[in-house]
Amino acid sequence: MAGNSFGNHFVISTFGESHGAAIGGMIDGCPAGISINMSDIQAELDRRRPGQSHLTTSRNEADTVEILSGIFEGVTTGAPIGFIIRNNDQKSSDYGHLKDTFRPSHADFTWESKYGIRDYRGGGRSSARETACRVVAGSIAKAFLAMHGIEVSAWVNRVQSIEMPEGKDWYSSTEIESSLVRCPHPDTATAMENLIASTKEKGDTVGGSIRAVARGMKVGLGQPVFHKLHADIASAMMSINAVKGFEYGSGIAGTYRNGSEENDGFAEIDGKITTLTNRSGGIQGGISNGAPIVCTVHFKPVATIMKDQQTVNKDGETVNLVGKGRHDACVLPRAVPIVESMLALTLADQLLKMRSDKVL
Amino acid sequence: MAGNSFGNHFVISTFGESHGAAIGGMIDGCPAGISINMSDIQAELDRRRPGQSHLTTSRNEADTVEILSGIFEGVTTGAPIGFIIRNNDQKSSDYGHLKDTFRPSHADFTWESKYGIRDYRGGGRSSARETACRVVAGSIAKAFLAMHGIEVSAWVNRVQSIEMPEGKDWYSSTEIESSLVRCPHPDTATAMENLIASTKEKGDTVGGSIRAVARGMKVGLGQPVFHKLHADIASAMMSINAVKGFEYGSGIAGTYRNGSEENDGFAEIDGKITTLTNRSGGIQGGISNGAPIVCTVHFKPVATIMKDQQTVNKDGETVNLVGKGRHDACVLPRAVPIVESMLALTLADQLLKMRSDKVL
Amino acid sequence: MAGNSFGNHFVISTFGESHGAAIGGMIDGCPAGISINMSDIQAELDRRRPGQSHLTTSRNEADTVEILSGIFEGVTTGAPIGFIIRNNDQKSSDYGHLKDTFRPSHADFTWESKYGIRDYRGGGRSSARETACRVVAGSIAKAFLAMHGIEVSAWVNRVQSIEMPEGKDWYSSTEIESSLVRCPHPDTATAMENLIASTKEKGDTVGGSIRAVARGMKVGLGQPVFHKLHADIASAMMSINAVKGFEYGSGIAGTYRNGSEENDGFAEIDGKITTLTNRSGGIQGGISNGAPIVCTVHFKPVATIMKDQQTVNKDGETVNLVGKGRHDACVLPRAVPIVESMLALTLADQLLKMRSDKVL
Amino acid sequence: MAGNSFGNHFVISTFGESHGAAIGGMIDGCPAGISINMSDIQAELDRRRPGQSHLTTSRNEADTVEILSGIFEGVTTGAPIGFIIRNNDQKSSDYGHLKDTFRPSHADFTWESKYGIRDYRGGGRSSARETACRVVAGSIAKAFLAMHGIEVSAWVNRVQSIEMPEGKDWYSSTEIESSLVRCPHPDTATAMENLIASTKEKGDTVGGSIRAVARGMKVGLGQPVFHKLHADIASAMMSINAVKGFEYGSGIAGTYRNGSEENDGFAEIDGKITTLTNRSGGIQGGISNGAPIVCTVHFKPVATIMKDQQTVNKDGETVNLVGKGRHDACVLPRAVPIVESMLALTLADQLLKMRSDKVL
Repeated sequence: MAGNSFGNHFVISTFGESHGAAIGGMIDGCPAGISINMSDIQAELDRRRPGQSHLTTSRNEADTVEILSGIFEGVTTGAPIGFIIRNNDQKSSDYGHLKDTFRPSHADFTWESKYGIRDYRGGGRSSARETACRVVAGSIAKAFLAMHGIEVSAWVNRVQSIEMPEGKDWYSSTEIESSLVRCPHPDTATAMENLIASTKEKGDTVGGSIRAVARGMKVGLGQPVFHKLHADIASAMMSINAVKGFEYGSGIAGTYRNGSEENDGFAEIDGKITTLTNRSGGIQGGISNGAPIVCTVHFKPVATIMKDQQTVNKDGETVNLVGKGRHDACVLPRAVPIVESMLALTLADQLLKMRSDKVL
Repeated sequence: MAGNSFGNHFVISTFGESHGAAIGGMIDGCPAGISINMSDIQAELDRRRPGQSHLTTSRNEADTVEILSGIFEGVTTGAPIGFIIRNNDQKSSDYGHLKDTFRPSHADFTWESKYGIRDYRGGGRSSARETACRVVAGSIAKAFLAMHGIEVSAWVNRVQSIEMPEGKDWYSSTEIESSLVRCPHPDTATAMENLIASTKEKGDTVGGSIRAVARGMKVGLGQPVFHKLHADIASAMMSINAVKGFEYGSGIAGTYRNGSEENDGFAEIDGKITTLTNRSGGIQGGISNGAPIVCTVHFKPVATIMKDQQTVNKDGETVNLVGKGRHDACVLPRAVPIVESMLALTLADQLLKMRSDKVL
Repeated sequence: MAGNSFGNHFVISTFGESHGAAIGGMIDGCPAGISINMSDIQAELDRRRPGQSHLTTSRNEADTVEILSGIFEGVTTGAPIGFIIRNNDQKSSDYGHLKDTFRPSHADFTWESKYGIRDYRGGGRSSARETACRVVAGSIAKAFLAMHGIEVSAWVNRVQSIEMPEGKDWYSSTEIESSLVRCPHPDTATAMENLIASTKEKGDTVGGSIRAVARGMKVGLGQPVFHKLHADIASAMMSINAVKGFEYGSGIAGTYRNGSEENDGFAEIDGKITTLTNRSGGIQGGISNGAPIVCTVHFKPVATIMKDQQTVNKDGETVNLVGKGRHDACVLPRAVPIVESMLALTLADQLLKMRSDKVL
Repeated sequence: MAGNSFGNHFVISTFGESHGAAIGGMIDGCPAGISINMSDIQAELDRRRPGQSHLTTSRNEADTVEILSGIFEGVTTGAPIGFIIRNNDQKSSDYGHLKDTFRPSHADFTWESKYGIRDYRGGGRSSARETACRVVAGSIAKAFLAMHGIEVSAWVNRVQSIEMPEGKDWYSSTEIESSLVRCPHPDTATAMENLIASTKEKGDTVGGSIRAVARGMKVGLGQPVFHKLHADIASAMMSINAVKGFEYGSGIAGTYRNGSEENDGFAEIDGKITTLTNRSGGIQGGISNGAPIVCTVHFKPVATIMKDQQTVNKDGETVNLVGKGRHDACVLPRAVPIVESMLALTLADQLLKMRSDKVL
């Protein structure tokens, strides 16, 4: 198990700590022949980067990616795509007081216990900074999917208990990007922004959920047993920092209904067999059925709060942890491109696997 | 991606169709030196087998496992453990009418589209019959975990909207097995049983959720980034037939709270650093912290109902699907050992991986 | 690392000990739509089975394979293909004296040390009996390759120092099967048979080499760096019991020549770019170039001899090991289908991987 | 199959083209707690780098590695170790004439056919420049092995037909490094150097073989069936550019002997069970027996020669390829650290896997 790799055919591997020299990674198995627009990758990184609005952390990481290999004259060559993002705006001094202290609901204690050593600066490897690498790889996965007519999107559909009404199953980038909070329902977006701002003022944090969708799906992605498409998507999403729950299609709400209410009947429409409803979230028996993939990813509130908390240090001594540093009161707006990336990476991986389904 | 394998160190692979000659599988990577009690394995299989009560399908599969290798004089040898379970009580004639018909919310359509061929009898490979193999492997994983003081348990905590009150974080086997529905809260169990019975009478089906717990945990299981312990558990659980949602620790409910309410503070108790609460469900930064692992797995209602449904056949012609055959109105009671098995398999896999964390 | 699996796309996994209930395995990733002729599989098994001639061991294992899944109405379905071969003619009593004794150049000592327990009967898991499973899987891989015009063949080209003259780069099955020793050069075959017979009489054993060839190759199989086609073939061949060396193309002999003598120049012939010579053995930069794949696999003499040998038991006490039992004086004739199978499995695996090379 | 990764527990992945911005890679699964001396890594890179003597290419790549992650205050943390080596002394203009031409016995034709695109400059990804990354990772693997008492060494034992006499099974770094050609037998070294120099003058190239040894071995590394220790080593070695053959222990020579001559008898010496001879090369049944691992790796002559050769271009037109550029007449001296690295990486991988053999 290479803990820092995801996928089996379209494989992303990442390395790097929050306050080390650089974070980076590589994609292995990316097919040759994909035109890559560097500004598209950078645009996605910019959606994830800190400091993009008053709602997010004031850390200001430019997050400029340098592609080192695998793309020649703007086109993927089939060789692995290596890339790095230098760490620039580290204030490691912000973290000196954390060297021996275990922050509540952070990875400090488990990492220290597991490895006997850790780079404590900014959370080290456990920092969500690592997800910038996923966004780089996700951008390339999106370009690959686009060649097959598959589009991926995500938006914030809930912050704490402020939830947008069930509406369309697809929103344009313009609709999503029109609010700082990346919720395509303007009234809900405003309420979310207000909640985040007031929570930030109190030094506290909030969670919520992100809805992710893929449309233009082909039938047949996913493996029947242990690599069901939704199992792989769940694995992808649960690997994102702070995610506590995952559901797809009608999700948990659907488990409160009867089979007769929940089943998706088939019909032939325009010469194509399709489901009349999409409670299955585009996946039946672990395999995509051509309908949009729909899933919801739930994030806990950020563990770093600007309030004092009681905890212990390495020696088990009680420590009063004073909240300081530059942190998000709500990660969801910045997590949108990460969720999209993980969905795109999973689909790209299964799209390649699918090529082996049948004799040609 | 070997779609029919799970795990990287303690690896379970399965094969077999519902109405083929046999289902079976193998465990690769099981350490040498585990004493295996064959009657323990059979007892677990009996908890999963159909026909065990009036609440479940009347299909009566004895599900007798034959271990073919890897165990010598009652002890694992380090060689792969191969096993088969013969299919005996198949009534393939029950399924002839399904040869060309796509049942709603089943894998018929996706499988046919993906592979161009399928063993339609009893759902073939997409049948939940496959999970009997997971229970065999899970029993062996449990024996391995037990040698490290880790115990796994699960119970039905909700059927449709009948949910047991939040109570203890561990129930004994006796408490769980005291009701047919495997809910350790007697009043709730009775209500669940009544609901399942009345639903069955109507030819309909219900879903619900199973809570799974591991106690006696060590600190340090899980990988930091893509193989976070909860990501692997999610992948394991979502691969079980009919699962639509997964959450761990305080789960989705916790995402409605503030960081200051949700964080688990540390304290030293009896010379051991521990969390005062367990909203993290025993996992922080993807790595176990020694507290019990707690997760909840949500199952949709069974797709096979005894009511007529409209659907299409291969040619896209509308077909009236008449409900018949022998099926469960609620799979949750029988799914309990499957959920336990997937948790045990994931923990066994990560327990072995953990041996590589540090230089010795 | 699942030690008992080979391949990443077309994956063979095996289990079983020489004297357990059965050996068996599964193929995961076999594409749907391959017509399988059961008698073809059995015919290959018969080429490997003991007791087929006076030259081989007198053990008489019928080696009847039972396919348990993954093939429906004679065609592969994309589901994993599980199979078993029951062990029938075990004379475990032949092995009782080996329980505590480490046979020279066998796996007894290393296995005992590694696992602390072993099934000593007939070598247990370390027995070459396991290779029967590879032949089953190899037969299916051959059927898949045949649909792409690729054929695999192998023959004995050397027994000890009796080597057939360099001749054709392909021999028909008829030519190869015309001698008991599976050498297509009749005079050499006779000499080999005489050597084996006389060696057997002396209670000794001989090794030699097998040449394997694949023709009808496509350009493009193989990965550039760590999974070069010849690296995967080497891994496959070296995993066969008793193999001590591997070379491909002009092999080691070619390393005695100058670059100017060894290079394969290109030319266009009949509108197709091709090499004028094939010192590269059909592989350049780790990727097939369309010319026949040619490799040579070297087997040491069988370790079990009918002569007395001095060794030690578990307690380190000197033991006189008396040669007895039923063993081959030379495994090469029976190893031919095993070598073919490993080549076929490697090519099937890379043929599937190759489908991901480019965007379509 | 991640074609650019090697290993399953101690996993090295590499990226980068000869004339791109940088080459690099990452190690995933390196245990925490290894002290890393940066100058040791650099020293190994210097043994591989071009321009180190008049015998090698005059290209002068400083090959300075920058470690980006996974090492904190000089010690591995368990996090992935990312690193890059910038490409500095590229003269891409040297390669413009190769854009459309397929060099004999190079990867140009196969790569072009496979991917439809290639970075032709300096061989791109197929260049042996990639192996610098293996040397970085190999240095870290060596540091890990050293903590377990395992040492790895290699030397040139044959250039074309000039072979050093069979002698010791271990040579010190001083003995090996005392000649430019890295052959520890001074007379042979001189003859080799003369042959390389004279061959270079003629614009031709030579191959030969490298012997690699690991001592201080533990018993028990290796998996019984498909991941036999020597199968993994073979896979590792055959993945090095220009390698055509592999053998271990007594190797191919041993296949000319009888079983009675070839078997390694056991004896107890100083309370330790050990073999009296080491024809098995330290591996029995695929598992290390504690004796030194010994293997021999055969390299073909470099394909790039300074002589004119006839070949074709993309359009199949005959082209006269004029030899030019800066190339080695013999890669063996520079390949020594690469061979050592691949052996070290394989052993590190299996040493970690071995921790899962038994219940503790």
